Amino acid sequence: MLIVQKFGGSSVADVGRIYNVADRIATAYREGHEVVVVVSAQGDTTDDLIAKAHEITDRPSRREMDMLLATGEQQSVALTTMALQSRGLPAISLTGWQAGVATSSAHTVARVKKVNPQRILNELEKNNIVVVAGFQGYSPSDDVTTLGRGGSDTTAVALAAALSAQLCEIYTDVEGVFTADPRIVKSARKLDEISYDEMLELASLGAKVLHSRSVELAKKYNVNLVVRSSLTSAPGTYVKEVGSVENVMVSGIALDKNVARVTIVGVKDEPGIAFRVFSLLSKRSISVDIIIQSVGSAHTKDIMFTVDRAVHREVLDILEENKRHIMYEHIVSDDGVCKLSIVGAGMVSTPGVATLMFEALSDSNVNIDAISTSEVKISVLLDEKDADKAANAVHDAFIDTNMRFKG
Amino acid sequence: MLIVQKFGGSSVADVGRIYNVADRIATAYREGHEVVVVVSAQGDTTDDLIAKAHEITDRPSRREMDMLLATGEQQSVALTTMALQSRGLPAISLTGWQAGVATSSAHTVARVKKVNPQRILNELEKNNIVVVAGFQGYSPSDDVTTLGRGGSDTTAVALAAALSAQLCEIYTDVEGVFTADPRIVKSARKLDEISYDEMLELASLGAKVLHSRSVELAKKYNVNLVVRSSLTSAPGTYVKEVGSVENVMVSGIALDKNVARVTIVGVKDEPGIAFRVFSLLSKRSISVDIIIQSVGSAHTKDIMFTVDRAVHREVLDILEENKRHIMYEHIVSDDGVCKLSIVGAGMVSTPGVATLMFEALSDSNVNIDAISTSEVKISVLLDEKDADKAANAVHDAFIDTNMRFKG
Repeated sequence: MLIVQKFGGSSVADVGRIYNVADRIATAYREGHEVVVVVSAQGDTTDDLIAKAHEITDRPSRREMDMLLATGEQQSVALTTMALQSRGLPAISLTGWQAGVATSSAHTVARVKKVNPQRILNELEKNNIVVVAGFQGYSPSDDVTTLGRGGSDTTAVALAAALSAQLCEIYTDVEGVFTADPRIVKSARKLDEISYDEMLELASLGAKVLHSRSVELAKKYNVNLVVRSSLTSAPGTYVKEVGSVENVMVSGIALDKNVARVTIVGVKDEPGIAFRVFSLLSKRSISVDIIIQSVGSAHTKDIMFTVDRAVHREVLDILEENKRHIMYEHIVSDDGVCKLSIVGAGMVSTPGVATLMFEALSDSNVNIDAISTSEVKISVLLDEKDADKAANAVHDAFIDTNMRFKG
Repeated sequence: MLIVQKFGGSSVADVGRIYNVADRIATAYREGHEVVVVVSAQGDTTDDLIAKAHEITDRPSRREMDMLLATGEQQSVALTTMALQSRGLPAISLTGWQAGVATSSAHTVARVKKVNPQRILNELEKNNIVVVAGFQGYSPSDDVTTLGRGGSDTTAVALAAALSAQLCEIYTDVEGVFTADPRIVKSARKLDEISYDEMLELASLGAKVLHSRSVELAKKYNVNLVVRSSLTSAPGTYVKEVGSVENVMVSGIALDKNVARVTIVGVKDEPGIAFRVFSLLSKRSISVDIIIQSVGSAHTKDIMFTVDRAVHREVLDILEENKRHIMYEHIVSDDGVCKLSIVGAGMVSTPGVATLMFEALSDSNVNIDAISTSEVKISVLLDEKDADKAANAVHDAFIDTNMRFKG
């Protein structure tokens, strides 16, 4: 069968690990499968490149950032392919444009629009293992684009969909999807399976194990997805259309420390204000997460929202440049906050879930900054210093160490 | 006018130097010129990448080496463009394939076949400074290729030809073309101008200031070329169709330390042997430099030739694999040799030049391994340990510190 295997940056961080990855690929190939491999940049390469750009200027253009960052994956596909070849296996590396990964023009946060898999199919036809650079593609104007954090997951799923692969394996440094981050919550438990919807909520809430866009695509194209460890042979977590098979209330807890909070204080209490603010941000391809609007003084109101810390400064600049257009009193911002979320398909039908969460936080003396809820999740904004304590308290309240809390 | 400026790896080695380069580009742009910039990989990046590949395998495939090495220039164009933008200048970076640099399929030593400058012209039309990755292109099968050592010079000249640029400036860390390497020969003198042919010989003999393929192209398309320092405002050396304007006998001395010598001992003394050997090498795109065939014992002969050290091992492998096909006794090889050459259009008409060279070497107690001559140069192969001593002796014999030796 045709298998897409994705290996993250830590799995190819050094020569030993690259060979470990090569051996895993070799096993699948020798079993008679057609194998397409997606790899991320090695270890800290992407961070190092970002630092390099910031030595030049504190506001590098997004197009040039993409040009720079895409080199990380290009290096790791070349090195991984060399390792496969030195094991005697036929292999070839492809960049995003060679692999036909067509994206939008939104540099640094481009979306995959279409995959033209012709070159990959040609190489598979020649019995090659095809090693594709994750995280990158090309825009309609033939510029190099990148897909944002975790974009290699998206590349893997998009290729699996375009190639009608029977399986898409996401290899990582943990054994699968856990009820919470096991590095923070000691009693966290690995899930054997999870539905697309639950995984989507967990991913979009900051669980780092899968990129949310990749789960969206997997759901849309019904891609068989499994998250596994590249270091052990444990079976991993299958992500599929399971509905609420286990009928659990809370399937997991996600903690996102990459959050900055911005509050626009004292905007006029009149229609169109929110549109004015958020259209400015979306024009620059900046995603806003939680939005809360509160009443301020007599004729004004405050708008609070959260964004990725990476764009925090850019957001402040945009607001400053458009002060006269938006008309506000001042801006308050804080990049020392985090977002803790509980996710579960069963939550909507179970009363008192929010109360239980707030109680656990209160018992641990954790102050809640803001609250945002949907049908399948509850998120709270906290001071970052309370993050780990809060995650443990909420996990203990909802998730048993032996089994998931049943609704 | 339209100017192509090329900056080598040492000119963009760190943030300070990148800004120095940006300022130089800015000056030309603000004077009203259209500017296309070609940059190499930063400092030791290419060597570091080669070392990285060799950590994986001692015989990386050439295609994957190109995939890996091309990232060096992609990084430096992005960083240089960021520096230009942060100086308030409109600029855009392009990879080899984006810039339309079509090459042959000979990975690691590809030749530029054609430049399709449409994208560059579009960007110039938008008043952008266009920063193009040197050293790289794409093959007919859309694979990433590199042009071999010094390939960025070739990129610059090829772009200048395709764009009908009025001037192609090659910026380097020396003030121009010297009669010998000033780091080795203290009395070496800068030339104000040199003909394409003389420059070609100097370049092909290992003078590192310009890549020989770039000089070939410059001569073919009559590109106005100047070699200048990126650190001073000295006028540099103009390379043009000057014939033998200065009527000098020896215009320069070149020392190439990147030489390995291979001798095939005891091949049969029959027709077709040399063809058999060198067709095997040319099929693998390996360039052979000096070839000397000597008589061995009664019915056998020896063939000695030199190659780049980078392919030394590959050559030995090829010969070993084809031992039965070539039929020889054994191989002797040495990568501790160097090639010292004197170049000058006037040499052919001046008797005794070779004698003067051999005398200078003999006086310095330097042993000559092999000799190869053409109409405009004489090369000798020496033990590498004698390299600097020999270069100085020969320079002193031919080239006055004040003026070039007249024939």
